Amino acid sequence: MGYASAVELADDEEQTQLPPTYVVVKVVPDIHERALQWLVGKIRAKKSDGGGELVIMMEEKYSSEQEYTFHISATKIKLLEIAEELELIKRDAHGKLREFTVAQLDDFLPNDKTIDDLLTLSDKQTLVTHELENIRASSDDKFIPGYPLFKLYDNQAIIPFAQNWGLITKIYPLHEEEALKKLAGSWYMPRFMRQPIEDIRNYFGETIALYFAFLEYYTLSLVVPVILGLLGYVFTETVPFFCAFNVVWVTLFLELWKRKSNSLAYNWGTIGMTSLDEPRPGFRGVMGVDAVTGKVCPQSPRFMTTLKMYLVSLPIVAVCMVLAFYLMLISFWVEEYMKEYVDPDGWLIMIPSVVYSLLVTIVSAYFRDFATYLTEWENHRTQSQFERHRVTKLVLFEFVNQFLSLFYIAFIMKDISMLRSQLKTMLIISQGANHFQEVFMPLTMNYYYSSKTEKLKQKARRSSEAGQAQEKAVERSFPLLNIPQLPVDDPRISQAENEGNMEEYQDTFDDYLELYIQFGYVFLFSSVYPIAALWALINNVLEIRADAYKICKLYRRPTARRVKDIGAWQRSFEVLGGLSIMTNCGVLYLSPDVRMLLPDWSEVRILLLFICLAQFLLGVRYFLHIGISDKPEWVRVALARKNYESRQALKFERSQRNKKILYRFRTIHGTPARRH
Amino acid sequence: MGYASAVELADDEEQTQLPPTYVVVKVVPDIHERALQWLVGKIRAKKSDGGGELVIMMEEKYSSEQEYTFHISATKIKLLEIAEELELIKRDAHGKLREFTVAQLDDFLPNDKTIDDLLTLSDKQTLVTHELENIRASSDDKFIPGYPLFKLYDNQAIIPFAQNWGLITKIYPLHEEEALKKLAGSWYMPRFMRQPIEDIRNYFGETIALYFAFLEYYTLSLVVPVILGLLGYVFTETVPFFCAFNVVWVTLFLELWKRKSNSLAYNWGTIGMTSLDEPRPGFRGVMGVDAVTGKVCPQSPRFMTTLKMYLVSLPIVAVCMVLAFYLMLISFWVEEYMKEYVDPDGWLIMIPSVVYSLLVTIVSAYFRDFATYLTEWENHRTQSQFERHRVTKLVLFEFVNQFLSLFYIAFIMKDISMLRSQLKTMLIISQGANHFQEVFMPLTMNYYYSSKTEKLKQKARRSSEAGQAQEKAVERSFPLLNIPQLPVDDPRISQAENEGNMEEYQDTFDDYLELYIQFGYVFLFSSVYPIAALWALINNVLEIRADAYKICKLYRRPTARRVKDIGAWQRSFEVLGGLSIMTNCGVLYLSPDVRMLLPDWSEVRILLLFICLAQFLLGVRYFLHIGISDKPEWVRVALARKNYESRQALKFERSQRNKKILYRFRTIHGTPARRH
Repeated sequence: MGYASAVELADDEEQTQLPPTYVVVKVVPDIHERALQWLVGKIRAKKSDGGGELVIMMEEKYSSEQEYTFHISATKIKLLEIAEELELIKRDAHGKLREFTVAQLDDFLPNDKTIDDLLTLSDKQTLVTHELENIRASSDDKFIPGYPLFKLYDNQAIIPFAQNWGLITKIYPLHEEEALKKLAGSWYMPRFMRQPIEDIRNYFGETIALYFAFLEYYTLSLVVPVILGLLGYVFTETVPFFCAFNVVWVTLFLELWKRKSNSLAYNWGTIGMTSLDEPRPGFRGVMGVDAVTGKVCPQSPRFMTTLKMYLVSLPIVAVCMVLAFYLMLISFWVEEYMKEYVDPDGWLIMIPSVVYSLLVTIVSAYFRDFATYLTEWENHRTQSQFERHRVTKLVLFEFVNQFLSLFYIAFIMKDISMLRSQLKTMLIISQGANHFQEVFMPLTMNYYYSSKTEKLKQKARRSSEAGQAQEKAVERSFPLLNIPQLPVDDPRISQAENEGNMEEYQDTFDDYLELYIQFGYVFLFSSVYPIAALWALINNVLEIRADAYKICKLYRRPTARRVKDIGAWQRSFEVLGGLSIMTNCGVLYLSPDVRMLLPDWSEVRILLLFICLAQFLLGVRYFLHIGISDKPEWVRVALARKNYESRQALKFERSQRNKKILYRFRTIHGTPARRH
Repeated sequence: MGYASAVELADDEEQTQLPPTYVVVKVVPDIHERALQWLVGKIRAKKSDGGGELVIMMEEKYSSEQEYTFHISATKIKLLEIAEELELIKRDAHGKLREFTVAQLDDFLPNDKTIDDLLTLSDKQTLVTHELENIRASSDDKFIPGYPLFKLYDNQAIIPFAQNWGLITKIYPLHEEEALKKLAGSWYMPRFMRQPIEDIRNYFGETIALYFAFLEYYTLSLVVPVILGLLGYVFTETVPFFCAFNVVWVTLFLELWKRKSNSLAYNWGTIGMTSLDEPRPGFRGVMGVDAVTGKVCPQSPRFMTTLKMYLVSLPIVAVCMVLAFYLMLISFWVEEYMKEYVDPDGWLIMIPSVVYSLLVTIVSAYFRDFATYLTEWENHRTQSQFERHRVTKLVLFEFVNQFLSLFYIAFIMKDISMLRSQLKTMLIISQGANHFQEVFMPLTMNYYYSSKTEKLKQKARRSSEAGQAQEKAVERSFPLLNIPQLPVDDPRISQAENEGNMEEYQDTFDDYLELYIQFGYVFLFSSVYPIAALWALINNVLEIRADAYKICKLYRRPTARRVKDIGAWQRSFEVLGGLSIMTNCGVLYLSPDVRMLLPDWSEVRILLLFICLAQFLLGVRYFLHIGISDKPEWVRVALARKNYESRQALKFERSQRNKKILYRFRTIHGTPARRH
C-alpha cells in the first residue's frame, strides 16, 4: 500500500507527543528479561512476522516488586486497517450503515470530520485488543524465550497464552471520564425504564448492551404477570386461568425478544456472524487455507469438536448433574432424619440446608472453572460458539442446583406450603443478597485498593524527589527496551493504576444467571405463588440501576465483544418456559382445590384433564413458535437487499474479467458480428 | 445490449427452418378474434411493452370445433437472457457451480460446446414457461379485447388470467423421446432403490425430483421399523421398547432428511430461494420499486396476507375441520345405532362407513378447490409460499379425515382389535386402490384418447388429400395472424396432440399425501400393529416404480418448477412424528398387558409412568432437533464462501467508485503526500 509510508511519517511526528493509550497491559515483575523483550518485540513487529504493528509505551518502574505497565496505542492508519478487517459497520455520508473500508474513507468522512469522529474510543480499544489477541507465534518461536516449558505451536496466539501462564496479569482498556459521565447520567435514571442502549453499546460493546436490552425487555414483559398475579391474589379461583395465560405470555415474550435482538444485531452489524467467522485466539489447529475466506488460519475439523462434546463433555456434565442431584437429596434426607432428634422449629434444623447452600456455592465455583476448561478443550472455532457451549454446561448444572429442590418439594414431598415459603425466601433473600454482593462488596474492595494506590503515588513522589538514584533504578529495570516512556506526571499512569486495581467484570454470565434463576422462580410455580412476578419486577427495576452503577463505577472497563444474540440463554429461557407449562399443570393437579371443584371426577380423569391442558398449552406454544418469524420484516428485507447487491457485484466483477463478450457465441454460430 | 441485434439476425435465418417447440399452448376454438390477436401479439411483443419476446408458430386448424394450437419457441439469445434473469446455476469451465450470466458465456462454454450443451431442453422449457407466465398487461389493456368483463389491472400476468377464464385451455412442454427413454431405463429398475435423481431433476425439474428423493429416503428409512416390527411380532413383550425406538427413529429420519434436502437444494442452486424472491405470476399488488432488487414489480404489504391468513382463513379452516370431525362422529353414531336393528356381522352394517368414505372423497375434492381459492386470495408473494400455505390447509383437513377416526377408535371406543383391523384394511386396501387409481385409470384414459387422436390424424390425411378446399379452410381460421405455420407432416403436431390428451399431472400433493397417510398409519399406532411398516415398505418399493412409470408414460409432461425443500410437508411429517409419541404411549397405557405386568400399581401411577415416558421421548426429540444442524457442514461452508466472495466483490465495486484513495485523510492530517 503506497499510502502507508506517507502516513507512517505523520505518526512518527506524533510519537514525539506520545499517542493516546487504548489498552493497558500488565506484566509480572519477575518475568525473564528475554521473554519481556520478545513480547514487546512481537507487539511492535510487522504483521507478516505475526506481530501486532502496534505502538507501545511504558510506565516507570519504582521497585522490583512492581508490575511492568505497558500502554498500547496504534497509528491512525493501523486503526483504519483493522476497522476494515473487522468489517466495522459505520454510517456513510449518505446515512447508510455499511462495512467500513479504507478505500472509501471519503465516503465515511463527510465535510470536515476526522477519524476521531469515525472511530469512537471504544472502537479503537476493541480494534487494538483484537490486534493484541491475534499476535501469533512464528515458526521460529518454539517456546517463550526464557521459559522452555511454555511450548508454542506454529501461529499460536501468544498474548492469551502468556495470560494463561500468568506472565501477563491484566489487559484492560481505560475508561473515558467524559463519555462515562454522559452515559451514566442518562442511564441510572432512565425514563420509564428506557435505557440508552445505543450509547451503552458504543461504550461497553455489544455483549453488555445486549444484556441490558434483554433485562429491560424482560422487566417490561413482567408487567403482565404482575397484573395477573395481583388479580390471582384477589380472586384465588381464577389462578389456573391466569397461570395458563402466563405460560403463553412467556412464550410470546421470548419469541418477540428474538425479533428485537435481531433488529439490534442488524443495526450493530453483527447479525451476519457465523460459526465460520475468524477463529478465536484460543482456537487450536494446523495452519491451512480457510475454506470460506481463503486466508491462512488455524484449521481443525468440526467433527472432532462434536465428538468431544457428545462423547466426553456431555457424559461428564450428566454425571456432575446427577451428583449435584444426590447432594440435594442428601440434604433433604439429613433434614428428615434430624427432625426426629431436634426441635423441628429450632435453628438446628436449618443446618443441613445452610450446609447445602454453602456446598452448592463452592461446588458451582469449581464447576465453573471445570466447564471453562472442558469447553476450551472442545476447541470451538468462534468466541460465540465457545460461550454458547460453556453457558450450556453451566446452565444445566445450575438448573439442578437451583430448581431441582423445588421439583422435589412440589412433586415428591407434595408440600405446597413449603414450596411457597421456599419461593418467597429465595426471591426476597437471594435477590437482596445479590444486590449486596454486586454493589457493596466491590465498593469496599475499591476503597481498600484506592487507599493502597494512594500509598504508591506517595512512594512515586518520594522517588521522583530522590532524582539521581531513581534514574539509575529505572535504567536497570528496562533492560534493552527501546520504547518511549510515559512522563511521571502523565495522568494516565494513576488512571491505569486505579482501574487496574478495580475488580474485573468477568462476563455477563452471572448477570444472566441471576435473571434465569429469577425467571424460574417466577414462572415455574406461578400457580403456587403468583405474586412472585411483583417481587421480580421491583427487583429488576433496581437491578437495572445497580448493574449500571456497578459496570460504570465499580469494575474495570471490560473489553467490548461483538455478539449477535444472547447465545445459549435464549434456549435456556425457552426450555424453562416449556417446563413451566408442565410444572404448573402438575402443581394445579396436586392442589386440593381442584378435587373440591370436581368432586365426582375420578383421580385418573382429573389427571387426564391436566395432561390435555398441558398438551394444549404446548401446542399453543409450538404454534406461536412457528407463527412468529425470528426476524422483523424490515430486517429480512434489508438482509435480502444486501445479499442481492453483493451477488450483483460478484456477477459484475466476474463479467469485468471477461472482456470478449459473446465473442465465442458468435464464432460458434457463424454469425458475422456487426459493429455498431 | 449491442450484441442482441447481431444475434437476432442469426435467429432470422433460423426461423425459415422453424425453431424447435418448447411449449405448446392450446386456445379454445371459439375465442374472440381480437382476443386471439391480442394474445399472439403479447407473446411476440417487446419486454418493455409487457410482452414475452417469444417466437410463436401455429398448427393448421381443420374445423371450427378444433382448438387453436400454438407452438412457442425462443431465440437463443432470449433463452440466455432469461437464464441469467432466473439465475440458473450451471457448471463453468472450471467445474464450479455458479449463476449463469450472459457476459460470462465464455466461461460456461468451454472448448467447442454450444448453448445446447449448456441449456437442456428441460431448462429451455422452464425458461419459456417462465417468460410466458410473466407476460403482463400494459396500462392500455383494461380488459381482454372482445371480453369487456374480463378486467385486467395494470401489469397483471395475462396468461394465467386467460387460463383462469378458460380462454387458454392448456399449456404444456413436450416430451423428449430420446431423453425419456434413457431416464426411464435407469429409473424403473433402480439398483437397491437408488434412483437417478439428477437425471430426474434435469428432465422434470426440482419439485418432482425432490419428491422422488424423499420417497426413496423415506422408504430406506422404513427398513429399521420393519426389522423392529418383525421382532415385535415374534417377541410381543418387547413391543413398548421397539415402539419407543421407533418414534426416536422417526425424528432422526426427518432431521437427516432436512440435511439431505439442503444438500440437493445447494447443488440445484435453489437453496437461496426466499419469500422475497420475484413474485409469482398470480401475485396482485400496486406496481412499485422492490425493496430488495430495486426492480419494478407488484408490491403488496406482507401484513395484509398475514391478517387474511390468521383472521379469515384460519377460522374457516378450523370450522371445516370441526365439520369434518362431526361427519366422522355421525358415521360412528349411525353405525352404533344400526347395530341394534341389523345383523352386526352382515353387509348392511358397512353402509355408514362406505357412505362416509364416499362423502369424505367428495368433500375433500371440494375443499381442495376451496383451499386453493383461499390461498390465492391471501395473495402470497412467491410460489413456494403459496404452495406451503395451500398444503398446510389441505393437510390440516386431511388429518381430520384420515386419522381422527383412528383416534376415536383408540381413545374413545378403546377398541384395540378394531383399531388393528382398521389399520390393516386401510394399509392394504387403500394402497392397492391407489396403485390401481394411479396406473390403471390413466392407462385406460390414454387408450381412449389415443384412438381418438388416430381418428383426427385420419381426418387430417383426408383433408390433406382434399388439397384446394383445405387451404381455403385454413385461411379462414387464421384471421390476420401473421405467424409461421407448421407443415402438415411435422411430427410435432401429432406429438402435441397426443400429449395434450394425456391426463395432466396436477402437482405432487397427491403423492405426498399418500405417503403422509401411510406414515401416519405406520407410526401413530405402531405399538398396536407393528408389522405395518413392512406393508409400507413393500408398497413403497412398488410405488417408486409406479410413480416413475406414471409420470414418464401416462401423464403430460409437467412444467418444471424450482423449489428448495418439500415445503409444508416437512413440518406436517414432523408434527405427525411428535403425535406418534403421544398416541403410542396412550395406546400402551390402555393395553391390558401393562396392567398384567404391573399388577400392584394404581391406575394413577401407571398413567404417570406413561406420561413420564412420553415427556422423556419428547425431550429426546427436542435434543435431536437442536443437536442436528439443518445443513451439512460442506453446504454451510460453501454458502459462507459464496457470501464472503459476494461481500468482497461489493466492497471492491464500491472502492472502485472512489478513486481518490486517502486523499481526504491526508488533507485532514496535513501530511504532504509523497509520490512513489
